[in-house]
Amino acid sequence: MAERFVPHFQEELQQLKTRLLEMGGLAEDRVSSAVQGLVERDAALVDRVLGGDGPINQLHIEIDSRCFKLLALHQPMAVDLRAIVSAVKINTDLERVGDLAINIAEAVKRYMRHSPVKELIDLPRMADIAQRMLRNALDAYVRRDVELAQGVLDEDDALDALKTQVFRELLTFMLQDPSTIEPSLDLILISRHLERIGDHATNVAEDVIFMVSARDVRHHAREV
Amino acid sequence: MAERFVPHFQEELQQLKTRLLEMGGLAEDRVSSAVQGLVERDAALVDRVLGGDGPINQLHIEIDSRCFKLLALHQPMAVDLRAIVSAVKINTDLERVGDLAINIAEAVKRYMRHSPVKELIDLPRMADIAQRMLRNALDAYVRRDVELAQGVLDEDDALDALKTQVFRELLTFMLQDPSTIEPSLDLILISRHLERIGDHATNVAEDVIFMVSARDVRHHAREV
Repeated sequence: MAERFVPHFQEELQQLKTRLLEMGGLAEDRVSSAVQGLVERDAALVDRVLGGDGPINQLHIEIDSRCFKLLALHQPMAVDLRAIVSAVKINTDLERVGDLAINIAEAVKRYMRHSPVKELIDLPRMADIAQRMLRNALDAYVRRDVELAQGVLDEDDALDALKTQVFRELLTFMLQDPSTIEPSLDLILISRHLERIGDHATNVAEDVIFMVSARDVRHHAREV
Repeated sequence: MAERFVPHFQEELQQLKTRLLEMGGLAEDRVSSAVQGLVERDAALVDRVLGGDGPINQLHIEIDSRCFKLLALHQPMAVDLRAIVSAVKINTDLERVGDLAINIAEAVKRYMRHSPVKELIDLPRMADIAQRMLRNALDAYVRRDVELAQGVLDEDDALDALKTQVFRELLTFMLQDPSTIEPSLDLILISRHLERIGDHATNVAEDVIFMVSARDVRHHAREV
């Protein structure tokens, strides 16, 4: 039975991976547009992010349904089983990243009602790191590359340090000048949203390590 | 083949549900302790939350492993397949709720370094709603009760309204008195963490509806 299904299964699995990469690309684009909208104060771009979650939501449903079909029709074992269950989880993570792009865009819209608090350097840097983490985590999934996945886990600290730095700096502004309180709050929220995108990339990377090695690094990784 | 496995499978599935409920109970307790620590300014209680994520992390790994075994050994179909894939997702949601309890406890610790900003009424209310949502969503999973799951989705608006109210009130405090800025920021963060616990309960409820009816309400629900 297994032999009859193998080639077909591998082809379907390949398609699943392609769709996940596509979804990752969409999610990444949306985050990137939201942050670009912030830096360039481009209201039209931000509005496109706010209105454009249709394709990612479509893909979310389609990928889930592909996973269920693969599980039901092919009854995969071992690493293939773990690859599909991981795909279900990664799909959820990517959908959340799409939602976070909307949360960022909402904060950007509010932020743009005020004068700029400061030149934005750390937030775009956080966005770059978060996006790279996401891209590498997905590449690691597709290539079953544990080393690349491990690299994603290592980058999370940089994101965390930037978040703390952004917070401290904005707190100083708020204490000095109350008129910066409202817009600063939105920048702080944006930094938290970017941190959470990094968390989702971390989840994906942990799933990859589990998928390839059947080794659960999740809680050990946090204990180190 | 199916027949030989059915009784054993149902028994294993029952155990999986029991473990998920246990994990939900742990997650709920931790959120409840963190918020109680905030209201009563009880540093020892907060420290217990910060140090006590071992059992929930253990359960997280155990439940995941049960799900993989059920998928690999029993190759379930239709609603049983959806029940197990849902369990994988719900397990992830519950683990995140446990993490959010830690995030809340961290914010509470920082908050307690300052004088209280205000009497806390809305945050404990948010915690009650979020915990009830989580409990009902898990009950709905165990009983395969779509109506109860739908009720969870409906409660999310109440949580959202409270979050907005908390934010507006604290913003007023911060604008009036800069010495309240730092502690107010922590209360705002706590309200966001509680909102996210509600989001996780919503995810669980959506999974239940999908599991029972094979109907994907996720993106429709958000469009209504």
